[in-house]
Amino acid sequence: MQTIHQDTIVAIATPQGEGAIGIIRLSGPNAIHLADTYFYGSNLLKAEGNTVHYGKLKDDDGKMLDECLATVFKAPRSYTKEDVVEFACHGSSYILKSVIKLFLTNGARLAEPGEFTMRAYLNGQMDLSQAEAVADLIASNTASQHALAMDQMRGGFSKMIAALREKLIEFASLIELENDFSEEDVEFADRDSLKQLVQKILRTIRELKQSFDYGNAIKEGIPVAIIGKPNVGKSTLLNALLNEDKAIISAIPGTTRDVIEDTIQMEGLLFRFIDTAGIRETEDTIESLGIARSKEQLAKANIVICVSEIQEDHPSIVQEYKALGVSETQHGIIVLNKTDTFHACHAYDVEEATSTLLNRMPVIAMSAKEKTHLGRLQKELVSVVQEKSKPSQTIVSNLRHYEALDNASTSLEKVIIGLDEGISSDFVAMDIRHALQYLGEISGEISTDDLLDSIFSNFCIGK
Amino acid sequence: MQTIHQDTIVAIATPQGEGAIGIIRLSGPNAIHLADTYFYGSNLLKAEGNTVHYGKLKDDDGKMLDECLATVFKAPRSYTKEDVVEFACHGSSYILKSVIKLFLTNGARLAEPGEFTMRAYLNGQMDLSQAEAVADLIASNTASQHALAMDQMRGGFSKMIAALREKLIEFASLIELENDFSEEDVEFADRDSLKQLVQKILRTIRELKQSFDYGNAIKEGIPVAIIGKPNVGKSTLLNALLNEDKAIISAIPGTTRDVIEDTIQMEGLLFRFIDTAGIRETEDTIESLGIARSKEQLAKANIVICVSEIQEDHPSIVQEYKALGVSETQHGIIVLNKTDTFHACHAYDVEEATSTLLNRMPVIAMSAKEKTHLGRLQKELVSVVQEKSKPSQTIVSNLRHYEALDNASTSLEKVIIGLDEGISSDFVAMDIRHALQYLGEISGEISTDDLLDSIFSNFCIGK
Repeated sequence: MQTIHQDTIVAIATPQGEGAIGIIRLSGPNAIHLADTYFYGSNLLKAEGNTVHYGKLKDDDGKMLDECLATVFKAPRSYTKEDVVEFACHGSSYILKSVIKLFLTNGARLAEPGEFTMRAYLNGQMDLSQAEAVADLIASNTASQHALAMDQMRGGFSKMIAALREKLIEFASLIELENDFSEEDVEFADRDSLKQLVQKILRTIRELKQSFDYGNAIKEGIPVAIIGKPNVGKSTLLNALLNEDKAIISAIPGTTRDVIEDTIQMEGLLFRFIDTAGIRETEDTIESLGIARSKEQLAKANIVICVSEIQEDHPSIVQEYKALGVSETQHGIIVLNKTDTFHACHAYDVEEATSTLLNRMPVIAMSAKEKTHLGRLQKELVSVVQEKSKPSQTIVSNLRHYEALDNASTSLEKVIIGLDEGISSDFVAMDIRHALQYLGEISGEISTDDLLDSIFSNFCIGK
Repeated sequence: MQTIHQDTIVAIATPQGEGAIGIIRLSGPNAIHLADTYFYGSNLLKAEGNTVHYGKLKDDDGKMLDECLATVFKAPRSYTKEDVVEFACHGSSYILKSVIKLFLTNGARLAEPGEFTMRAYLNGQMDLSQAEAVADLIASNTASQHALAMDQMRGGFSKMIAALREKLIEFASLIELENDFSEEDVEFADRDSLKQLVQKILRTIRELKQSFDYGNAIKEGIPVAIIGKPNVGKSTLLNALLNEDKAIISAIPGTTRDVIEDTIQMEGLLFRFIDTAGIRETEDTIESLGIARSKEQLAKANIVICVSEIQEDHPSIVQEYKALGVSETQHGIIVLNKTDTFHACHAYDVEEATSTLLNRMPVIAMSAKEKTHLGRLQKELVSVVQEKSKPSQTIVSNLRHYEALDNASTSLEKVIIGLDEGISSDFVAMDIRHALQYLGEISGEISTDDLLDSIFSNFCIGK
């Protein structure tokens, strides 16, 4: 879809609030003319692209709004590939609002959220997944989120999808050709090669889909559930990890009823810790509701910290862990808590023995209260995540992309079945076309207005 | 004071928070070199001033921090009159912090609040009162605050002070010359002309000092006290003016005990409304504390709205008003409230009669509860302020300037006394020197490090 934008849009491009500089961005065919009309100090119409000019902005009545800098970008050498003027004003909300008002009453339109980036996409500056990465980049708060968004913005993922599509398109055109000659029963497309290709593409898509779990966790925070029997110190551990008093702690078993969660960064990774009600048989209705929620949270977590009170009797700890119901795909870490009150034998002996009984699963003896060996637990959490990520691999972090990949793989599986069952080429062609469409939606080669609206409405104003 | 800055400073120049664009500002002798070292896409060392360049920022390990625009300003054509580079990055706090960190670890220093503007002042880009206006401009939220700050930034006030100083310096040098010839009893400076000049300067200073009341009120919000007996509807009136339920209202006299205040803009002016406890004799300790505070607030207000319940008996309303103790210099507005419950005769008759008895003072019959004629009160408030301001006049809005003017006038009054009493020229010269120093402090021709620190520490970072 290529749209020619006849209107000129305007927005404040810097965050709200007082600051040294506030930026007003104009983009569209009339941007330079409009800017020049109210800017005194330099002729912006005659200005070269990528140049900065000092001057005064005055309104229709000649009242001075600000002394500012105007930067001129000429199409197509601008973010939107249109003519763009950016005013760097004094960062007063009054001034910025007055300048916006001036341009709105003189022919510009207030930009929708993300509209500058949407124009960049529509004018071929970037594809849709790169445009989406711009929003992720702005929202990034950790090194890992930043790396994910930056990678996607630079187009690694787009190139991969484009390559898959290209190969499929080639075969699709051969099969479509067969349909034109359908009465003559010819096969231009070699069925074995097609099947091999589709299987290869399916493998790639499967890998990408698998990366989503990790990608999404990086973006939203890696969910870590803290579970265990009542009163083993789960809330104390949460507070120690967050380094604040988030959860109310007491010596009374069952103090925590709600699911309490909060995020913290460690080594550039965002962890979302979830403290849960201790799991036990209880008569207390509210507590048992809490326990039901604990089990739900447990199911959603990528990493599960199972907290037990340290004791000499190793097998009982092991049984306790096994009874909690951690799934195979989750990473479990055993914490043997309260080493501060444990004097019977050396904590490391218990740790070692437990680890052996649990097939070398990580076991950490520590005191959440005294923060003894808290660092070992933090290190373990970081290394679990780092092991999962291979820096070379393309990682899917966007739910929309995941769903498109999922749909594409369903269609391709139908292609395989069709080929195996020798069904007619027009049905095979239809499934391939569907797969192509789903893949095309990721990069935006195929897009609808509704899709674009839903994507760009999540952007901030001025981008 | 002219300082040569050997170090290069860096700061984020846009407000905190996510946004389309975040700006990092570098200023100092090493700014362009430092920027160029980590910027890939264009050679900034060879770039001309006032040009914009697209490229990538990478850290010491070659990790890409952002794709961004770099604007190069070359000394002296920059805000600080030093070499300046501004990076327009994606507005992610993670990216901005990473870029700042990169420059800090490679020789730049984090800028103090207002340090860019301080350098602009020290390098002669603007004088001190203009620099102060930059901070006022950024903080401006209303049209009137904006106009005040803009006027000061453009130097109208500075020129006025400079002209006063120039004339004084001329005479001062003649008198100092007399001191060199003190044994010979000559008079180079004509005493009568000097006295006339000093009196003229004193008049100007007096006018400027008088404008401070208005200027300061514009800046901080024009204080309007709402006073009256208990239960006449003062809090209802406050809520109506603010258009929200700020104060708790009830039919019980004495509901309001604390002084409640809030600001609202009308016609580009900021009003600070102060609701007070009803003034009456009371046994209630807390209430009587509140009443004491009401009286304090009343004394501070520029405008006083005296609220009474409307009644047919005009003289009693007038007596009530007179008993409240509004001073001569304050603008009083009488509100005859509760017209919704008043059916005896036409409200305007009472209004007219009261106004006549109070020497044509503005009287408004209205219902705060029903918001009847609220607009008339609002209009009255705006016109009281607009009458006070003469657009052509220079207005002092800065307490530091006011104090300097006050000190200067004290010294100049001593000069007059000295001339009248015919005291020796070296004493007269000393008083003139003092006056010159105080006036010089306003524009910063005379300044100390302490003064500069105290002024610029009120700025935001990055300006």
